[in-house]
Amino acid sequence: MRYQHLNNLARLVIHCPDQPGIIAEVTNFLKSKGANIIDLDQHASTLNGGEFFMRLEFQPNTKEFDVESVNSLFAEKVGFKFSMQWKLTQAVNLKKMVLMVSKHDHAFLEILWRVKRKELAIEIPCVISNHNELQSICEGFGVPFHYVQTSESKKQTEKNILKLIDEDVDGIILARYMQILSPEFVNKFQGRIINIHHSFLPAFAGANPYQQAYDQGVKLIGATAHFVTEQLDEGPIIAQDVVRVSHRHDSNQLKELGRDVERSVLTRAVKCFSEDRIILNKNKTVVFE
Amino acid sequence: MRYQHLNNLARLVIHCPDQPGIIAEVTNFLKSKGANIIDLDQHASTLNGGEFFMRLEFQPNTKEFDVESVNSLFAEKVGFKFSMQWKLTQAVNLKKMVLMVSKHDHAFLEILWRVKRKELAIEIPCVISNHNELQSICEGFGVPFHYVQTSESKKQTEKNILKLIDEDVDGIILARYMQILSPEFVNKFQGRIINIHHSFLPAFAGANPYQQAYDQGVKLIGATAHFVTEQLDEGPIIAQDVVRVSHRHDSNQLKELGRDVERSVLTRAVKCFSEDRIILNKNKTVVFE
Amino acid sequence: MRYQHLNNLARLVIHCPDQPGIIAEVTNFLKSKGANIIDLDQHASTLNGGEFFMRLEFQPNTKEFDVESVNSLFAEKVGFKFSMQWKLTQAVNLKKMVLMVSKHDHAFLEILWRVKRKELAIEIPCVISNHNELQSICEGFGVPFHYVQTSESKKQTEKNILKLIDEDVDGIILARYMQILSPEFVNKFQGRIINIHHSFLPAFAGANPYQQAYDQGVKLIGATAHFVTEQLDEGPIIAQDVVRVSHRHDSNQLKELGRDVERSVLTRAVKCFSEDRIILNKNKTVVFE
Amino acid sequence: MRYQHLNNLARLVIHCPDQPGIIAEVTNFLKSKGANIIDLDQHASTLNGGEFFMRLEFQPNTKEFDVESVNSLFAEKVGFKFSMQWKLTQAVNLKKMVLMVSKHDHAFLEILWRVKRKELAIEIPCVISNHNELQSICEGFGVPFHYVQTSESKKQTEKNILKLIDEDVDGIILARYMQILSPEFVNKFQGRIINIHHSFLPAFAGANPYQQAYDQGVKLIGATAHFVTEQLDEGPIIAQDVVRVSHRHDSNQLKELGRDVERSVLTRAVKCFSEDRIILNKNKTVVFE
Repeated sequence: MRYQHLNNLARLVIHCPDQPGIIAEVTNFLKSKGANIIDLDQHASTLNGGEFFMRLEFQPNTKEFDVESVNSLFAEKVGFKFSMQWKLTQAVNLKKMVLMVSKHDHAFLEILWRVKRKELAIEIPCVISNHNELQSICEGFGVPFHYVQTSESKKQTEKNILKLIDEDVDGIILARYMQILSPEFVNKFQGRIINIHHSFLPAFAGANPYQQAYDQGVKLIGATAHFVTEQLDEGPIIAQDVVRVSHRHDSNQLKELGRDVERSVLTRAVKCFSEDRIILNKNKTVVFE
Repeated sequence: MRYQHLNNLARLVIHCPDQPGIIAEVTNFLKSKGANIIDLDQHASTLNGGEFFMRLEFQPNTKEFDVESVNSLFAEKVGFKFSMQWKLTQAVNLKKMVLMVSKHDHAFLEILWRVKRKELAIEIPCVISNHNELQSICEGFGVPFHYVQTSESKKQTEKNILKLIDEDVDGIILARYMQILSPEFVNKFQGRIINIHHSFLPAFAGANPYQQAYDQGVKLIGATAHFVTEQLDEGPIIAQDVVRVSHRHDSNQLKELGRDVERSVLTRAVKCFSEDRIILNKNKTVVFE
Repeated sequence: MRYQHLNNLARLVIHCPDQPGIIAEVTNFLKSKGANIIDLDQHASTLNGGEFFMRLEFQPNTKEFDVESVNSLFAEKVGFKFSMQWKLTQAVNLKKMVLMVSKHDHAFLEILWRVKRKELAIEIPCVISNHNELQSICEGFGVPFHYVQTSESKKQTEKNILKLIDEDVDGIILARYMQILSPEFVNKFQGRIINIHHSFLPAFAGANPYQQAYDQGVKLIGATAHFVTEQLDEGPIIAQDVVRVSHRHDSNQLKELGRDVERSVLTRAVKCFSEDRIILNKNKTVVFE
Repeated sequence: MRYQHLNNLARLVIHCPDQPGIIAEVTNFLKSKGANIIDLDQHASTLNGGEFFMRLEFQPNTKEFDVESVNSLFAEKVGFKFSMQWKLTQAVNLKKMVLMVSKHDHAFLEILWRVKRKELAIEIPCVISNHNELQSICEGFGVPFHYVQTSESKKQTEKNILKLIDEDVDGIILARYMQILSPEFVNKFQGRIINIHHSFLPAFAGANPYQQAYDQGVKLIGATAHFVTEQLDEGPIIAQDVVRVSHRHDSNQLKELGRDVERSVLTRAVKCFSEDRIILNKNKTVVFE
């Protein structure tokens, strides 16, 4: 996030069918509100009849900039006209993201520390886990920890989890949460659940990716942050990275090296999400980094 | 370059003092000409009173889009008003770039092959060298080669070189040209001469950077593409990259590894230049990659 | 290769069941021949009862070092005792590697240029292609080019190819050769055919990997150099690398970016092969880089 | 570290003038003790009359392997003969490393977490700081924290620090300790103090490297872990890495991106130190990674 010390920063993210004149209308509108655009990133998927994607950061002209009324006006004057999906946000309103984790602490800790150090501009209302090992560490960060025992019925378990998640939550981070979520659960938070998978997808989906990588003898191992969909490990990819490995590394060492990649890739994905940099486009993402 | 198969693509690059409303005016203008913006990248250096940088690609509405008349109109309606420095170009008009080289062939060949393969959208009117070793290879690519002997007077030598360079040349690529150019020469092509230096500047400026790197025991070696200014190896940096090395590499092997980095970094810089992605900003560059 | 300017360099590569004392016996033997070991790299796959891998470079004590007689002696004194597979070579005897290619010239040219520039210490006795587009470029490098038309019978085609390959060839490089080789052909050159596949295997095996990568929306694309086996795109991996991509890249641009990765990954694999750095270990490789 | 779950692992690291036969003698000795060598990495700096470097990991034949008596015997039989400097260690004896820090917590926390998670096989007897901000976090990890106020006399301050450091400490980690140590202090721990500098040395030595990097407009920023010598920021380099930056990053953002590189580079250096992978060679290092 630029200008992180400043409260006075707003963002507008737009997705719609492409046609000439969209940027002009949007920026005319912002100009009429006295806004100064700081960063703008736009992309059309093809030359004609493609998809239009845009993200911009602007400085509203007064500190009393009222998002709701500006949003209504934008809908009326611009949004509906171009069949837009859009989002208008203020940087000062941090995204609320629930953190879910099982036993592995590396990705979980990375997120907690970065939030504490204000490197990730999110709020974590609570952590939910199907184990209780991480409770005391979590509470050491001042974050409420909920241990939700896995019952025989996934439905019941998820019901228990849902009670703990506020309706206005912006997203959910699965920082190595090792339970498969039901389609019902996933659909409730469509495009809002970020998972870190410990392989370079689509290679090594499913269980034990490091063992799979070891058996295959790959020379790079990776991690993938993606939105969760009904299809396991197949949701739209947000961020990926790899690290070089060799014959000297056994599968335990792949895990150790991989943990570092998982931490950085999940961080990048959450950071992009928190700064409204991601636009979902069917089974893919546009990420304005 | 996007849509490289298409002729019908234009670019507008702008640098001016920042103020609210610039994007609106520019895009209104383009809208009035029927243009469809394909990619737009904008950046303001600070929140208030900073510098405004923008690059956009658009599709004019007719194939008869006349750059000159649109440019005049833009000057009148938008450019002067905002004290802009701008450039309006058409992708179909390839940049003409003279290639200068001494004896090392790696960067030189990389450029020639990429041009031949149409991976670099430039035209090379000629190659100029202070040695004649590369003449036959150069001519094998169908590119005229001029051997300009280094005379005792740098002034005279450069005079001989200047005779070979058309006035309308867009840029000069120094692909390991081992002569220092005079301030007079450099100033004639300010912001248009791209050099590849075989170190990660500002480390190891000057002669024998690989030997310097070896003596220092660094664990990464690099290359830097930069615009040439009067100060040796100090011009605005366009692109840099590094590669990992170890105690197993002697200075010859550093050179060998470094050559690959030089090739890719110079390519990236020339590619950005050819696609109007670089804006000079005093001693730095804005590169919209 | 270290000390590439020197003729007087030999290499010994060993693979055998692990047990205590192997290194001592091998180095005692070399000491008795007056050799000075310059670089040694050894690895045991597990603590007990694993596999033993070793590569070393040494300087024989005289220029008249006779590989054959030393090899016989080594067999008798050391090799058989430890059930070794080993290889004793001299750096001055460049590996002979046939280059096979279809239409894409990037990997093909990279290899030819590096050989010409002596960056790859191999000899290319000839190029074999199922197309004739690259004939004149190839011959410009002074390398014989054989166009072998694909006949209806793969058996016949490969028979024609085999006539062109000397029996003593050390290896075959498939620099984007787009025909699937028969199991018979592959088995004749087991562990000696290096292919470059344009994806990060095991992701996107088979045809059109860049299109597959584009459709999947991955954020990195890669290339894999591997030994060819009967199973398509499943042979032991030698080298891999990736490059970052984004929503801005269409599948043509993925191809363009990918070409650079293919070039460098294939180069690395061939370089390792040429310097006896690769030991095959079932479906994996040990690469002493 | 390989086989990290095992106690029964020893290491031998050797530096001496090169001559034929060293490896044979060393491995004969180990064979006579019943050791099985697991990993061996050797390097000679030049063909003749160079420096010899070797690191090996081996499994002694009994759990009662006595380092001291084996060491004495090695000295007598091998070490003195070849004028070696060597070190014989057991993996189970973790290196004791004092952690020194000022106010920045990122590198400090990275080390503490990795030690806690057993990813770094070191023991931290205590943390010493010239500030007290990090005391409670430190103690949360169960590590003693000593706040040593900076007095007017550096001599006195360092005297106070030295009282806190046991004589048998293996090393000191400066995890962003912002005081310059006196030559006396440095010399007491020659080759044992690891510092993380927040730039790609030798570029941007001294104060405020991120600001220097910003002013220079570099396209990569880096971090360097090095041994501390009397010359500020000039000690032998152990590890370096970089991350790509652009015009979009102000100096605060460079700091934020740089912190991640600092964390990983310092970790790598400490890991190599803890596993006896580093050999000092005048103003450079040999790192057997």
